[in-house]
Order: sequence, then C-alpha cells, then structure tokens
Amino acid sequence: MTPRVREILSWYGADNPGTLTNLARLLGHGRLGGTGKLVILPVDQGFEHGPARSFAPNPPAYDPRYHFELAIEAGCNAYAAPLGFIEAGAREFAGDLPLILKLNDADSLLDEKNPEQAITGSVEDALRLGCVAVGFTIYPGSGYQYQMFGQIRAIAEEAKRKGLVVVIWSYPRGGDLTKAGETAIDVVAYSAQIAAQLGAHIIKVKLPTDHIEQEAARKVYEAEKIPIATQAERVRHVVQSAFDGRRIVIFSGGAANFDDTALFDEFRAIRDGGGFGSIVGRNAFQRPRADAVRMLQTAMDIHAGKAV
Amino acid sequence: MTPRVREILSWYGADNPGTLTNLARLLGHGRLGGTGKLVILPVDQGFEHGPARSFAPNPPAYDPRYHFELAIEAGCNAYAAPLGFIEAGAREFAGDLPLILKLNDADSLLDEKNPEQAITGSVEDALRLGCVAVGFTIYPGSGYQYQMFGQIRAIAEEAKRKGLVVVIWSYPRGGDLTKAGETAIDVVAYSAQIAAQLGAHIIKVKLPTDHIEQEAARKVYEAEKIPIATQAERVRHVVQSAFDGRRIVIFSGGAANFDDTALFDEFRAIRDGGGFGSIVGRNAFQRPRADAVRMLQTAMDIHAGKAV
Amino acid sequence: MTPRVREILSWYGADNPGTLTNLARLLGHGRLGGTGKLVILPVDQGFEHGPARSFAPNPPAYDPRYHFELAIEAGCNAYAAPLGFIEAGAREFAGDLPLILKLNDADSLLDEKNPEQAITGSVEDALRLGCVAVGFTIYPGSGYQYQMFGQIRAIAEEAKRKGLVVVIWSYPRGGDLTKAGETAIDVVAYSAQIAAQLGAHIIKVKLPTDHIEQEAARKVYEAEKIPIATQAERVRHVVQSAFDGRRIVIFSGGAANFDDTALFDEFRAIRDGGGFGSIVGRNAFQRPRADAVRMLQTAMDIHAGKAV
Amino acid sequence: MTPRVREILSWYGADNPGTLTNLARLLGHGRLGGTGKLVILPVDQGFEHGPARSFAPNPPAYDPRYHFELAIEAGCNAYAAPLGFIEAGAREFAGDLPLILKLNDADSLLDEKNPEQAITGSVEDALRLGCVAVGFTIYPGSGYQYQMFGQIRAIAEEAKRKGLVVVIWSYPRGGDLTKAGETAIDVVAYSAQIAAQLGAHIIKVKLPTDHIEQEAARKVYEAEKIPIATQAERVRHVVQSAFDGRRIVIFSGGAANFDDTALFDEFRAIRDGGGFGSIVGRNAFQRPRADAVRMLQTAMDIHAGKAV
Amino acid sequence: MTPRVREILSWYGADNPGTLTNLARLLGHGRLGGTGKLVILPVDQGFEHGPARSFAPNPPAYDPRYHFELAIEAGCNAYAAPLGFIEAGAREFAGDLPLILKLNDADSLLDEKNPEQAITGSVEDALRLGCVAVGFTIYPGSGYQYQMFGQIRAIAEEAKRKGLVVVIWSYPRGGDLTKAGETAIDVVAYSAQIAAQLGAHIIKVKLPTDHIEQEAARKVYEAEKIPIATQAERVRHVVQSAFDGRRIVIFSGGAANFDDTALFDEFRAIRDGGGFGSIVGRNAFQRPRADAVRMLQTAMDIHAGKAV
Repeated sequence: MTPRVREILSWYGADNPGTLTNLARLLGHGRLGGTGKLVILPVDQGFEHGPARSFAPNPPAYDPRYHFELAIEAGCNAYAAPLGFIEAGAREFAGDLPLILKLNDADSLLDEKNPEQAITGSVEDALRLGCVAVGFTIYPGSGYQYQMFGQIRAIAEEAKRKGLVVVIWSYPRGGDLTKAGETAIDVVAYSAQIAAQLGAHIIKVKLPTDHIEQEAARKVYEAEKIPIATQAERVRHVVQSAFDGRRIVIFSGGAANFDDTALFDEFRAIRDGGGFGSIVGRNAFQRPRADAVRMLQTAMDIHAGKAV
Repeated sequence: MTPRVREILSWYGADNPGTLTNLARLLGHGRLGGTGKLVILPVDQGFEHGPARSFAPNPPAYDPRYHFELAIEAGCNAYAAPLGFIEAGAREFAGDLPLILKLNDADSLLDEKNPEQAITGSVEDALRLGCVAVGFTIYPGSGYQYQMFGQIRAIAEEAKRKGLVVVIWSYPRGGDLTKAGETAIDVVAYSAQIAAQLGAHIIKVKLPTDHIEQEAARKVYEAEKIPIATQAERVRHVVQSAFDGRRIVIFSGGAANFDDTALFDEFRAIRDGGGFGSIVGRNAFQRPRADAVRMLQTAMDIHAGKAV
Repeated sequence: MTPRVREILSWYGADNPGTLTNLARLLGHGRLGGTGKLVILPVDQGFEHGPARSFAPNPPAYDPRYHFELAIEAGCNAYAAPLGFIEAGAREFAGDLPLILKLNDADSLLDEKNPEQAITGSVEDALRLGCVAVGFTIYPGSGYQYQMFGQIRAIAEEAKRKGLVVVIWSYPRGGDLTKAGETAIDVVAYSAQIAAQLGAHIIKVKLPTDHIEQEAARKVYEAEKIPIATQAERVRHVVQSAFDGRRIVIFSGGAANFDDTALFDEFRAIRDGGGFGSIVGRNAFQRPRADAVRMLQTAMDIHAGKAV
Repeated sequence: MTPRVREILSWYGADNPGTLTNLARLLGHGRLGGTGKLVILPVDQGFEHGPARSFAPNPPAYDPRYHFELAIEAGCNAYAAPLGFIEAGAREFAGDLPLILKLNDADSLLDEKNPEQAITGSVEDALRLGCVAVGFTIYPGSGYQYQMFGQIRAIAEEAKRKGLVVVIWSYPRGGDLTKAGETAIDVVAYSAQIAAQLGAHIIKVKLPTDHIEQEAARKVYEAEKIPIATQAERVRHVVQSAFDGRRIVIFSGGAANFDDTALFDEFRAIRDGGGFGSIVGRNAFQRPRADAVRMLQTAMDIHAGKAV
Repeated sequence: MTPRVREILSWYGADNPGTLTNLARLLGHGRLGGTGKLVILPVDQGFEHGPARSFAPNPPAYDPRYHFELAIEAGCNAYAAPLGFIEAGAREFAGDLPLILKLNDADSLLDEKNPEQAITGSVEDALRLGCVAVGFTIYPGSGYQYQMFGQIRAIAEEAKRKGLVVVIWSYPRGGDLTKAGETAIDVVAYSAQIAAQLGAHIIKVKLPTDHIEQEAARKVYEAEKIPIATQAERVRHVVQSAFDGRRIVIFSGGAANFDDTALFDEFRAIRDGGGFGSIVGRNAFQRPRADAVRMLQTAMDIHAGKAV
C-alpha cells in the first residue's frame, strides 16, 4: 500500500472499509499498481455495437476468455464487462485480476432521441462473480436521465453497504444536446460533477473538446477565463469539476483510432491535466494481441510518468 | 455423460452444479442424447397466433397431451411451452422428457409497432412443474427492449440460483427494423450476442438471410470480408457471435414450410455451420403425427451426422 | 434549550422524540442557536447549474470540504447538499454541524416544460451520514407534481419513523405557471401550504413578489384586502399560510445578487414579516470566504434582531 | 417410463409434477431403472461414526469422489450424503446420477439418552447442487422426536413446493426404547407409519427383528395373528404399515456385515416381502471397489428378480 | 496465480467465482503467496481469555492496530479476529491484507460442562469490513454441538452466496470428552471430517496427540494399523480425514510455548504430514514484535520448504 493510494482512499471517508478494500485492490493491481493511476480494459461493445463491428477486426476477441487474458497480460488494473462476458470467465480467471460488472447496457438496434439503458446485472451478481466494483452508465441530458439517476442511486446504496466500488460512466446524450455538445467541455465537466454528486467512487467521461454547449455556461467560462484551450487544460478542468480532484476521474477516447501518435498524445494530455488514467476498449481489443499489449503498456508508462 | 457434453458444461463456469445438472439432462435426453446437439419441440403458437391458425391443420394438436407425446415419440431433447400447456400434461408425463417453461408470451390480437410480451410464468412455476429450464423471448430493437432485458435479468438471476437453465429466444423486431432486417445476418448475429451477454445458457435465433440491415455493420462485413454467402456460413458467424461458440445456439426456420427438401437443407446448413441444433414447432405439429416423427428424426440424424 | 425552541417543538406534536431531538439540534446550533431563527447554507448548485457556473467565481468552492468549513466558520445552523457533497465531508466534519441530505436533484442539461427531479439519496443514507434532516424539492404546478408529492410522502413517512426532520423546498414551476407566477404571492403562499400539508417540518420558499398569478386568488386577495404591498407583509402572509406560523418557513432570494444592501433588506423583510430565517447559497459560496462569513453573520445578526 | 413407475407415481397425488419428475428420475436411473426397485448408496458415516471407522477399511473412500464413482459404476439409483460430500463432487459429476442431500446429521462424539441431529443443509442447497431429493433422519421415541418432526415438516413443505422428493430415515431411538426395541417389528412398523404420516415420499427403515417392544402392540400382534416369523413377513408388515404399500419403503441392514450370504438373504427377504429396495452404505464402501460393485449389482439383480 | 493455487481452487467446484476469488486472495497473499500454504494470525484471545492473560506479556498488543501491523510485517496470509478488533483497524489497514471475521466467540467467565459460543458478527459485517472470509468455532462433542452446527450451516449458506470463504475452527470439547480426548487423534480427525461435511473451505484443528479417546475408534486404528506414532503421521491422517486432502486443513498448537525448538518441530511435522499451514496466535503476539516476526517468518520458511 503506497502513500498515494492511502491518500486517495482518504477522500472516501463516507465509505466502509469493505469498499475501501476493493478500491485498494483496483488501485493496487497491475503495472500501475500503487501509482494512483489506472488503465482499465472495458469490453461492452459487443452489446453496444454488435459482435461483428466489435470483434471482426480481431476475431480472437469473439471469445470471452480473450479479454481476461489481454487485461492480465497487459497488466491492466481491471477488466469491465456485462454479465455474460464476466460469467464466461469468472471461474477460470478467479483471482487473476479485479473485475467490474457493468450493470446496465444499451444496444444500437434502436435509435432513440432520448437514450436509456437496460438493467442487465445486480449487486448480488457482482458478489457471486467476485467483482470489486459495479459499473453503471448515465446519460445526463437524456429524457430518461432522472430515471437512470434513480437506478444508480439504489444500486449504489446497496453496493456501498456490501463493500463494492461504484463506477459511473457519465455520457451526456439525448434531449436537446447537439452531437458536438456531447463532448463539449462545459457538458463533460458538468457530467463529471453529476456523477460525483450521485456518489460515484470512480467517474469515467470522454475527453472533452473546447466546444461550449450551453450559453449560460459560456458566460462563466469567458468571464472567469477558465483555460480550456489545450486538452490537458480541459482534463484539469474536468478533474477539478469532480470535487476538486478528490474523486477518481478516468477518460476514454472516442471512436477507434489506430493512429497511436494521436492516442498517446491523449494519454499525455490526461496525465498532464491530472487525470487518473484511461479506459481503453476498442483501441485495445480490435488490434492484434501483441500490439494491444504494447499499446496498453505504453499507456501505463505514460500515465506513470515513465514514458514521455 | 459423454466427453462432448462434459466439454459443453465446462463453458458455464459461473453456474452452480444445479444448473449444470439440468443442462446435462437437456443434452443427455432423446435420440441426440450425448451428442451435444439438440432438437427441441416448442409449442407457443396457440398463444402467439391463436388456436385455429395453430392447430386446425392437424386437429389432434389442440390437445395439450399431443405435443408431449410427439416430442417423446420423436425423441426430442425437450418440449417447450407456455404455462397452460405445460400444466396440462406435467403430471401425466412427469419424468418422460425435459420441459422448458416459457415465461413470457405475446398474442396477435394487438399489433404494436413496438412489440412486447406478457410475463406468464415464474421460476417457482418451473420448479413445481418439474422443468429443467425457463424460456424467455426478447425483442432486440423494440421500444420495449430494455424493459424486456431487465425482466429476463431478474428472472435469470433467480433461475440460476435455483439450478435452472435459461433459454432466451432472441427475435429482433420493432422500432426502426425493417421486416427484412428481422432476419438480416448482422441483426441476428447481434441478437445472439445480446442474449449471451444477458447470461443465456441456450440461445434461440432465426436462420439469418444474407441481408445486412445496419449501415455501420455493412462497412465492417465488407471490410473484414466476413463470409455470409451460404446459409452454413451465416450459421457459423452467428455461432461465433455467441461467445465464439461457447454458448449453445439453436435455430428455427421461419414460417411453416412443408417442403421437406428445403427444410432438410436448413438442418444441414445448421450442422455444417456448427450450430447446436434446431427448434421445430409448426413444421412438426401441423402435419400428421407419423410424418412429424419421421421429419424430426431425420432432423436429428442430420444434426448427428448420421444422415447426409 | 430556550423557551422559544421549546415552544417551536411544541408545534410538532405528531412527531416522535427522535425527530424533535434532531429539530432541536438544528435550532440549537450556531450563532442563532436558541433564538428560533435559522440561517442555512445549501450547496446543490453544482448539480443544478453545473460546476463552472457554480464554483468558478470562487474556485476553492470546487472542494466539497470548503462548504462544511464555510458553514462552520460563519456559524450557520446547518449545511444542506446532495449525496456526493455530504459523503465527501461527513467523516472529516462528523459532529461539527447539523447536516441536511438533499434527496432529490435536477440538472440543467435538459429543459423540460414540466420539470421533475431525480431521487439521489435515501433516508438510510441520511442516517449513515449522520444527518439531522432530509431535504426534498417539490415543483407545485408541474405536470410531475403529484408524482413528486408521492415521493416525498413515502420518504417523509420513513424519515419521521426514524427520527429525522423533513425539509421541503417548495418551488412552483412548470405547467401553466408563468415565469412571474413562480414568485407570485398567491402561488408562493399556496406552495408553502402544500408543503405544510405534505408534512414538512421546515419549508423553504422563495421571497414572493406582489404579483398575483391566479384569477380565482386575486378576487379573494382584493376582497379580503390581504396586505401584500411590502416584502415584510408578503413574508407575513406566507408564514400565516403555513399553519398560521406553526411551521418553520425560511426564505431564499433569487439569482446571485452581490449588492449587499438589497440582500440585507431582504433579510430585514423576512425578520419583520415573522419569517424564521434564510437559506443562502450562491450569494455565500460564490464570494471570497472572508466576505461570505461577514455577510452570513450579518444575516444572522439581522434575523436575531442584533443588527438593524 | 415403465407402467410400474407410472403406477408408483400415481400414489403421490398431492405432489406437484416437479416432485413426481424427480421421483421418476430416482426410479428411472441405473441398473434398476424402471423396475420400481431402488438401491441407493448413502455415505453419511464419515459424519456419523468418524472418518477412520468409516473409511480406513478401504482408504480410497476418504476421497469424496470415490462414492460418486462407486454409485455410478455399480448403477445405483442415487447417492445420498451430507452437504460437504455432495459439494465436493457436484460440479464434476453433474448430471451423472441422482443426488440426495442429507439435511441433518449426527456424530458419535456425544452419547445422549435422547438423541437428536443437527440441521446441516437446506432445500436451497439441494437446488443449487442439483439434487433430486432431500433426506432427513427422525428418531421416533427420542425426547427430541417432536422437535425433529417439526423440522422435517417445515423442510418437506418447502421441498415439495420446489419440486423435490422427501426421503425420511426413520430410526426409533432414545427415550424408553430398549436397544432391542430399536429394531422391534412393532416399533419399526410404527416408525414407517410415522414417516408416511409426516409426508415422506420414500421411507428408509432398518430390517426389523421379531422382537415386540410395546405391550400394547404385542396384544394386537398376537390377537390378529400378524405373521412376523420370517424376515420376508416382517418386511411385508412394514410395507403394509406404510400406507398399505403405497409409499416407497427401503431397508438398511445393521452393522457392517461382510458375510455376503447373510447379506443377500436380507435382500431376498426384502424382495420377497415386497420391499422396494435397499440402502447399502458401509457394506458397500468399506470393501474394495470391484467387490463392492459386484455386491451392489447382485443386490440389484435380487431386487429385480433376475437373481435368486 | 500459480498452478498449485489453481489446483486447490479446483477442489471447490460447488462454490461460485466470488468465493474462489476470495480463496485465491488468501492463498495469494504474503510470504507464502502462491505456495498453497498458509500462516494466519488469529487474535481472539482477548475475548476468550481476557485482556491481561492475553496482552499483558506484551503490552503493545492491547492496541488493535498492533495485530494488523504484526501480520503485515511478518507477511501472514491473513489476520483473523472478532468484530471489535477488526472494526478497530479495518479502515486504517484497508487493502493491506486479507481479513477473516470471526463470527462467534466465547469467554472464560463462565465454565460450562457443555461449552458454546455467542454469535458476535454477521456475513454483512464481513462484507462492510472488507473481509475475505468468515470464521466460526464449533465444539464437536459438546451438548450444544448441534445448535452450533445449525448456526454455521445458515451462515455458510449466506457467505457462499455472497462470495466469502468459510473457515471452521473445529475444537472437540465438552460432553463426555476427557481433556486428553480433546486432542486425541481419533477425535481431532473426526472433528476435521465434521467441519468438512459442514461445508468448510478451510478447517482449523489442533495438533493431535497419539491418544485414542473412543473405544469404537481404537479397534479400527489397531485393525487397520493406521500410523499415528509421529506428529507428521497424525497430521497426515487428519488431512486424509478432511476429504483425502481436498480441503485445506491448518493446525494450531496448544498453550503458548516459547520454546521455539518445539514450536518449529511442530511446523515441520505439519509440513511433513501434508498440512496446509499453521494458525499461530499467542505464540506470536505474546512475545516482542521483532521476535514474533522472526518466528512467524521461520514458520513460513518451514512450510514453504525453504527452511529445514
């Protein structure tokens, strides 16, 4: 247990030792163990985008065991997936790495103005499968947002009583938000704040652009001269927006992007802005395994400050 | 217990021995017992299409006992039906063959753009009736899809705790899907993936066509040159889409088709593509019993590789 | 325990001693302790308006600990906030001041004609976090008003059984109400009555204007010559509307207003009209801390009659 | 499904099809499958007498897998054991043979005038482990008898609702019963009646002697000239005492008895008296495996009428 | 994850992946991590014998933090203690080492012929405190033994459902057992069997003597020539008695014994007899810390085969 991990745990004073223990497991595992930084492999794209779009570029990834093995080999802090994928490897890989059970999921067969997700797992499922955390997506801005907030509220209350960590994927979407607004700096920062207020221990957001979506926000950003010109500045603002850096915020990129130069620049911006790490899905499992391991380990080295 | 059945059971490491026992019963019963292949007789058409449309072509089929007898005589692995049909024969045929209680059903009195189903049975019903499995239909793509996913989530959690097998009928339907899209290869493969992610032990889908419904999918199928020209290739792709063949996927044909040549070609394609078997309803019970038995046993022989 | 506090407790004869004990803690704490007057610091703007709009004007306020410290230093009776903010300081500041857990919240990413809020906390959360009270917002007039009334009913029933105080933020909004109507004297008085009828121990409303929104009300106000010309008269009428002064009613101003002269005039009007105190959020935490403490203490002195 | 099994099932008209299904599984499995006769391997002696007394004569029997394998190889209808032994093989042997989970057990470390047993498993355990039945011992005559009757009543109610078979080991013991009285014909017949009245589907008693324990009974046995001179007559009387043969009654011998001539005579007497079979524990697993298989299969042949 | 740990996990086929994960954590932690061997520090003597008898010989041990630190510094696999001691350090040491919450305890203020223990914690306590396992003492032979077996049965069912490991301290005591009988080889082996049959994942017994307590057992030990002359032989017999070595059995010594030569001989005997490790309480915490660390690490080296 490093001083940095102990410091991070100290921010979660309302949580019981069970939740702190599982948070320590997440922070203590893998190549980044003990640094306070995280790289997580999430694989919910099979559900979200369908199997061919997710796995055809790298067919071994159709097999649920592939992702456990990839996360283990690369030294990720954790592997996150929906119920079926976790069930398909939980016995074989029991104890090999921290698992995050995603408790809601959406598919792309139905296009809704106001997106929502289905509840697909439970806190009891997470316990029987040996997970350290539950994951949940909210869509701030969607007409279903309050229903989703209410769902995670109930799930989080149970998870915290039973010693699990709560990870919220906070993706603004739907309602009156424009497409650009989904990654606007004001909206992403706001979404981080909402997830923190809902009691998330770990918050996952997308890397924001310098677009500002809401007029009421624009006035403040301009009046207060909030720096948002660079990616690192925007990361810093999002982290600040999550309780002044006292909640763990990790970032994902957007669509699959095989230009590693750009990808590594993103990791550097997250690091330089004080972000806690990355969650890398398609960019990892859609390329050949050896290449994926190399990329993930480079990401870890960047986050750890070992690589420039 | 054959090595093949033992191998299949090994894929379900998160399940308790009770569920494995009932899965072994399904795989061990009937003419295909031990082969790892399945032919199941489902009779929910009385609920789905009404009695005359379902049973008038072969009036003995109005009697619930008829279907138990047909499945037993033909040597099917299991018989699946809604609550009423199962209740009407469960005592008389107790122990004669594995039963699957369908826990939701729809009728065709109401035509909805966004179809859903009624919950018509429970896990406790399945236990009191001696069933090895519960069945549940989801309509991926429907406006009610997430509600249905949430229902089967809760049902599956209870069923697994109590040692039952979970069978999901995954039928894309509703929302923006075209009629052709309901059996499009991309959509069927996606539906198999969704059922697997929801934790199904056995997945039932329709035989797909070579139509591709979603533009985002088309790009991948073309770029990755996924072979979908033949029925066997499409079956192979669907099986791959269900955890790389580590979940049992069985197939149904579409509308009743009394041309046995075409029907047997379908069985051959399922076999050649690595499918785990067939679920044959109307094509079986809407023809004279002796003919139905002959047809079902031919299906079994094809799946077992005994017939060409 | 002063005679005034004892008198106030006597109005709540249906409540158990646990709820009275927590109400006494609220009334007994801080610079106004024992006077029967209250100044509360609420910070739900991070959720309601987003982090930059809320905290950028005074960046230390991004840190959840800031608000606990501000309320303690100024001598407020209590600090009210959503789950995340309370969780982020509840251990560190345990026992330092009474806490009110806000159990529902809204954001401004979605603009709905009929506003509602998400349930974001529970009575059990309030107990485990050491809060004396739960807070809940209702929107009288909104298409969702009855749903919200039903939610607070259930919450209040549980809170009262477990000895907590119930604070209702009663903000008319939505439906056919005009913007001016949201602070119309008839509507604000009506909203105070509704909150009281729903069983609130403490009611928070906005300072009303002399606008009258509803024709049916106007006739009575004119016929009965209800005095509403001055702010103090309007406060008096609202307090009268909440069970003739036998429920605690406190007032907030509208948008942030840095003109302290106007602000202090509002406090004086509340005092002169028999109001029980103020709830001051943005006007407190969006200015430098020393200035905020001075302002809040002036407010307390006005309410206590120590300052003119 | 043979007519004889169907006939036996017809005696259990109050049971649901789930329980009949599991009873059919018991009666349909193994070398005696379909004959209506049963040979069951029970191994609770590790708990009842300690490991060395149980397994040292045949050390491979220390391994829990040994007993599954022995029961399977010999073709027993079922294997019965306490929780630990069933848990230790339930996954590996899932689906290989019907299992009976013993729900109470005693040890021989404490010698009590009024014996009782500990509850060591639950109906939910039986479901998760894939068992067809629960087993329970009662000690008619013990000072704790009514407590034990109450326990099995509650367990049986739950087991029957969930489709399981209830097997009662009915062993008179304790209180004023003499040692000879424990196997007295009047007492054994009485114990079979009690188990039947408690709702057992299958009753296990010891082979009775011609001793009569109770004076009140003796008068009737003599007045009515009930034939009890031969073992077969006594078996017949016990079977008659269990609802005139409409409940399944099986018999165990007493202490381990390696004289197979005597043992086979017992099986013949059970057969000739209309008993439904044997439950053979120590006599099976305390001898070398090949010899045990031969003995058990001879027992089956005798019960089936294939061997003289 | 070493092959040996994976092999041990394979023995627990009835358990869910959650329990396997926590078992892997126990086996993977500390200096013996991955070897399949365990040294655990238990501190329930404060409850069992009183504070002065427990802690006065080494006063720093009065402080609950001392024991966490000792276990961490020495590199033990786990620390086991009653509720109060675990609560007193669970936050401070969250994530530092696996914890076992003892769920029942006895004191020595009341001397009973038939000893029992109080239930002092719950499975939910174990979850909120971040424990990997629950511990429970049974007293085979006591007049309260069956009550205790029933308690652990219910606790174990819940613990296993929620993914925790079950450790049973099996200490024969009370009833007709002599003092010598409490550590007699027949009685200790029997107690290990009982714990295994009750479903324990890990069994803790005392090192047995060559005394044989029960006459019925003596006959078998002599007839079968079971080797029990040396401590290693006796350990081997106990391990065999716990499902032929397919359950983890660890051993404690008797009274505090500061003669390290004798103590290390005990560790060697455990190792040579195939025992899985030691549980060392008083012998560790009643001596100065540096000396305790040295002794515990020597124990680990002996168990790992690194020291003779």
